[in-house]
This record gives sequence, structure tokens and C-alpha cells, in this order.
Amino acid sequence: MMTNMSMVENIRTNLRPLPAPSGSHETPAISPFHIERALKRIQPFLRQTPVLPLHVTRETFLPCDIWLKLENMQMGGSFKVRGALNKVLQIPEAERKKRLVTASGGHHGVAVAYAGLITGMEATVFVGHQVGEDRHRHLQSWGAKIMEGGNDFSSALQMAEHYAAVSGAHFIHPFADPDIIAGQGTLGLELIDQMPDPDIVLMAIGGGGLIGGVALAIKNRYPMCRIIGVEAAGAPLFWQARQTGNFLPLSHIATKATSIAIPSSTLHNHHLIESYVDDILLVPDSEMIASAAWLQKETSLRVDLAAAATLNPLLKGQIFLPKGGHVAAVLCGAEIGAAPV
Amino acid sequence: MMTNMSMVENIRTNLRPLPAPSGSHETPAISPFHIERALKRIQPFLRQTPVLPLHVTRETFLPCDIWLKLENMQMGGSFKVRGALNKVLQIPEAERKKRLVTASGGHHGVAVAYAGLITGMEATVFVGHQVGEDRHRHLQSWGAKIMEGGNDFSSALQMAEHYAAVSGAHFIHPFADPDIIAGQGTLGLELIDQMPDPDIVLMAIGGGGLIGGVALAIKNRYPMCRIIGVEAAGAPLFWQARQTGNFLPLSHIATKATSIAIPSSTLHNHHLIESYVDDILLVPDSEMIASAAWLQKETSLRVDLAAAATLNPLLKGQIFLPKGGHVAAVLCGAEIGAAPV
Repeated sequence: MMTNMSMVENIRTNLRPLPAPSGSHETPAISPFHIERALKRIQPFLRQTPVLPLHVTRETFLPCDIWLKLENMQMGGSFKVRGALNKVLQIPEAERKKRLVTASGGHHGVAVAYAGLITGMEATVFVGHQVGEDRHRHLQSWGAKIMEGGNDFSSALQMAEHYAAVSGAHFIHPFADPDIIAGQGTLGLELIDQMPDPDIVLMAIGGGGLIGGVALAIKNRYPMCRIIGVEAAGAPLFWQARQTGNFLPLSHIATKATSIAIPSSTLHNHHLIESYVDDILLVPDSEMIASAAWLQKETSLRVDLAAAATLNPLLKGQIFLPKGGHVAAVLCGAEIGAAPV
Repeated sequence: MMTNMSMVENIRTNLRPLPAPSGSHETPAISPFHIERALKRIQPFLRQTPVLPLHVTRETFLPCDIWLKLENMQMGGSFKVRGALNKVLQIPEAERKKRLVTASGGHHGVAVAYAGLITGMEATVFVGHQVGEDRHRHLQSWGAKIMEGGNDFSSALQMAEHYAAVSGAHFIHPFADPDIIAGQGTLGLELIDQMPDPDIVLMAIGGGGLIGGVALAIKNRYPMCRIIGVEAAGAPLFWQARQTGNFLPLSHIATKATSIAIPSSTLHNHHLIESYVDDILLVPDSEMIASAAWLQKETSLRVDLAAAATLNPLLKGQIFLPKGGHVAAVLCGAEIGAAPV
């Protein structure tokens, strides 16, 4: 008994402590209870995406069982509908004549459009110049109205926020919102019901909404489970903060993994990650592409680069996998170009 | 109580009776027990493919929940490894120096090659002229040795059988073998553990090995569950037998769904189907293609035309779906060209 307890203590000690509340900090605004409530709220409009246990593979020896959480098969092709639905379903009936507004070139835009379809609200999505025509058509096929959002994601986000402030529309942030984070966290609640007690859970980090919510949900039940975040080597926002002790925006981005090419986030998300994420690993684009090809060969799944990046530490042997352990990797989104849109 | 029982009786009455044993018939050689034993035998080398509950979709209203059995993510890309493993794992150690031989242009060839890899046996696959170079490479990537099999699947099958007879190699038939059928039936055992009590289960029919085994496994536990088989309109082997009362080979084949383009099968499989399959529906190629595109849009999955055909009766409203009922469709194989091979 003592051994077990001190093992738990050791592992807890290795976790970074929650930041002390202070006036200058945003304090974490969500609790595991919010995530449970979110799941009840959004479940009717979601798919409970399955897990694929991957204990045999064709070309790679796995020292323990891997469960792939197939969130790429979610409505709209990613976890993003979880957060968007949790946010939008809380807009009171009387407020639903106004539009939804957001910025996104991909999954979050689709998610907001879908939440709009569910609630009878129109959705406007600001997209940066770098976003191609095929993605415009994809967003439009979900009913989104496209607006020019300037040079990049940051400018699109600013313009969307400004448009909302002026027009009174509801602005739906991709990750800097407790309701969005609580919604994304529902993936964690689902996952731990679908596999044996998890030892390690890996997922990609963009703005930190997914990993913040999921890590909180899982650590609440399994404090010993290691949560490992994966960032693009060309957009190491939270990795850099952990290395330097300073949470600063990135000066430039160099990755084709657009869904995790995020130059800045909130202190709130930074604190969630420092509190609940055990490791942050970086993956270069070339390795994400190789992992995506491996996954397609093994399972015929076509996922986006962020989802593929999650597999990299497993395929490259970068993390210690306990023999007989239970490891999960979240395939957070489908390759948008994979479907005829 | 009486009402319930008479309902069961009615449904049982609607089932075609098992054929009376007679000297001229091959009698069904497998029982549900064989399928349970097969599952124990092959499980270590299989993936337990998950089910995707599809209660929300983007463009189609579903009156009840549909569970998709994602067998397209199985090792080798299809259910075929179940049968091949069940057959090959029963070859005694002393007999494993001989080759495995079969005929196939697709999933069954891969499955036999995989069973060969597991047991340390070399696999030779006879392929007809119509099978393209990409499929040759796919088979070779699994370690199969390719042999010229003449004009079509039938000639390849004959040549494989002849080669085995002459060389003493182990011939692994794609569907006319009780061990193969029992292996495929394990999919049914898995499925009923993964969903609520099923009311309807749909799957494609080629040579009848999959549906024969699965129907037997499921009817043994759920005699009221309707088993619906789907054939290509251009290869209506078992549909024609049911219509005419005569089980005769097809004089010609006109479908691009190669994995279910089978001109003849055995009386054994015919009897299994007449005994346990409630309906056989035909799907033209154009509709299979549309269903494959629908599935890709909804889930980003790329399946073969046989798997896509299974969705057709659901999307076209061709079968009565009980409100609140539990319906499963088996996605039996991945699109072979979907993976870089």
C-alpha cells in the first residue's frame, strides 16, 4: 500500500504545480464538472467516435497496445464541433437571430457552421489569404459565409473579433474560451470510457484548447496518466514557453500543419498546459508526412498533419512505452482534402 | 409473454427453413461453436475493428441508429484475414514447409500472404489478366509471389487448385471451406458484442463465406435479427438462385465491384444463405459509387465498392428501418487503391 501511494506521490511531484492564483493571472475557469456538463449538452449532435486498438501492425513493432481515438470521423471531420457546439448551444433562444462569427481556414470554421445549422444561426468565417479555394468551397458546403481575413490567421482572427464587436454577432474563438475548452475536453471523458485505464495519452497542440480540456478531464480521473502534447517543430508555441519560462508569441511560423500553426494563445491555456501536460514534443513536417503515410498504409485512414504528428513519438520510439501499458493517440482531424468537397 | 412469443414465432416462420439433410446435399459443416473456437484461435493476430455509431449525418436523415463495422481497418484491409488465419493456423507444424496457394486479385490474396507471414509459410497467389499492376505490387508488398492465372478469377482459381494438387501446396479457397467460413463468422461474434441487440445487419455477398459465417453466428444469438445480403446487380449469384429456385453459375459478370464479382459458389454456401439470410438486395455499380462518395464525405473513409454497396439500401430507403432500432452495416474492405502501395 505504502509503495503504491508513494509512487503516486512521486508522479504527482513530477507534475508542474498549478500556478498560484494572482491578480495578474487569468485563473483556470473550467473544472472537470464543466466538461461533464458539456458532454451532456452536446452528445445528441455528436458522434461517439470509436477507438481502434492497434496491437498488430504490418511494419512496426509496438511494445504495447495503442488505442487510436478516431476523432477524424467526427461530424465535420474533427474534434472542433465539440467546443463549438458547447459554446453555441448555450446562446439563449432570444440571441439566436444574430450571426455566429469566427476565423478559421479549416476544421473550426466547419464546426461553427455546423453549430449554426443545429441552432438555426448563420455563420460567417473570416479566412486569411493563404487559405485555398478548395477550403472555401468546403466551408461553404457546410453553409458558412466566407469573408476576406487579411494576410494570415492572426489578422483573420482580429477582423472576425472586430466584425462581431461592431455588428453584435456572437464571436466564437477557436480556443481562448472556457466553453470551447470544456467542449474539447469531452473527448477525454469519452476516451477513458473506451479503453482500459490509460498510462499515456498523446495529442497535438495548436492553441491549447483540446489538450487543455482533455488533460484536465483525464488527470481528474487518472492523475498518474502521462499527457503528452505534440507541436509542430515550426510552431513551438508552448514548447518554447516551457523551455524559456516565458510565454511569448512566436515571431514566425514554418509548418504546413495549418491546424496547429498558431502563433499565440492565452495565459489561461498556457497555465492549463503547464499544470496538466507532462511533456511537449516537437515534430518536423517531414516526419508528420511520413506518419500520415504509415497510418494510411496500416488503416486506410487519411488524417491531417496534426493528427499524424501524434503518432510520431510512438513510431520513432521517442517516449518510454511501459510493457503491457495502455497508450492512446488522438487522431484529432481528417485530411480536409481527402473528401470530395 | 404470449405476444412476445408469437412475435418470435412469426419471425421464425418467415425465415426459410434449413434444407432437409439428404444424400445429394452437402450438409452445413460448421456450427456456432466452430466460430467461437475460430475467434480464440485468430484473435492474437487480428484487430478488433471498432464500430462507428452513425446517429448524426450531414446530408441524410437516418430514422434509427446505424453502426458501421469498420472492418476496412482490419489487418490487410478486409475481413479476409479472419478466414485465412483460421485455416492456416490449423496447419500442423510439420506441414508448414509447404507453400500456401490461392487465387485472388485483392483482399483474399493479401490475407493468405499475411497468414503466411504469421506462420512462416510462403504464399503464391494466382491472379487473372484483368488484375492491374498496382494490385500485383500490393500483393507483393505483403510478401506474396504472383503467378499468371489466365483470363479471369475462375481460371485463376482452377490453376491455383491444380498447382496445389501437383506440388502438394496447401490450397486456401476464398470461400468454399468450412474453416474459412467459420473465420469470417468471427466478425459477427465481435459485432454483437459492440452494439446493442441488433435488429438488422447488412453485408455484401461474394462467394457467400462472410455472410454465411456471420449470419450463422448472429442468428444463433439473435434469431429475430434480420440478415440482409447485398449483391452487385451485375453478379446476382445468390439472388438469382433464390428467385428461380435453382442454384446455377452466372453466365456472365458485369460489375466493377471485383471482390463480389463471383460467378459460382458451393451448395453449402447456398444452403447457409437460404437458411439464415432473410433478404438479398441488388445494387447497380452507379449506386455503389455514389454510396462510397457519401461515406467518404461523411467519415473520410475510403472503402471498396462491395463495402459501399452495403450502405445503399439504407441511403435509398429500400428496407424498413424500425424507429429506434439497431442496424449494423459491415464495411467489409478498404479501397485497395486508397493506400500508397
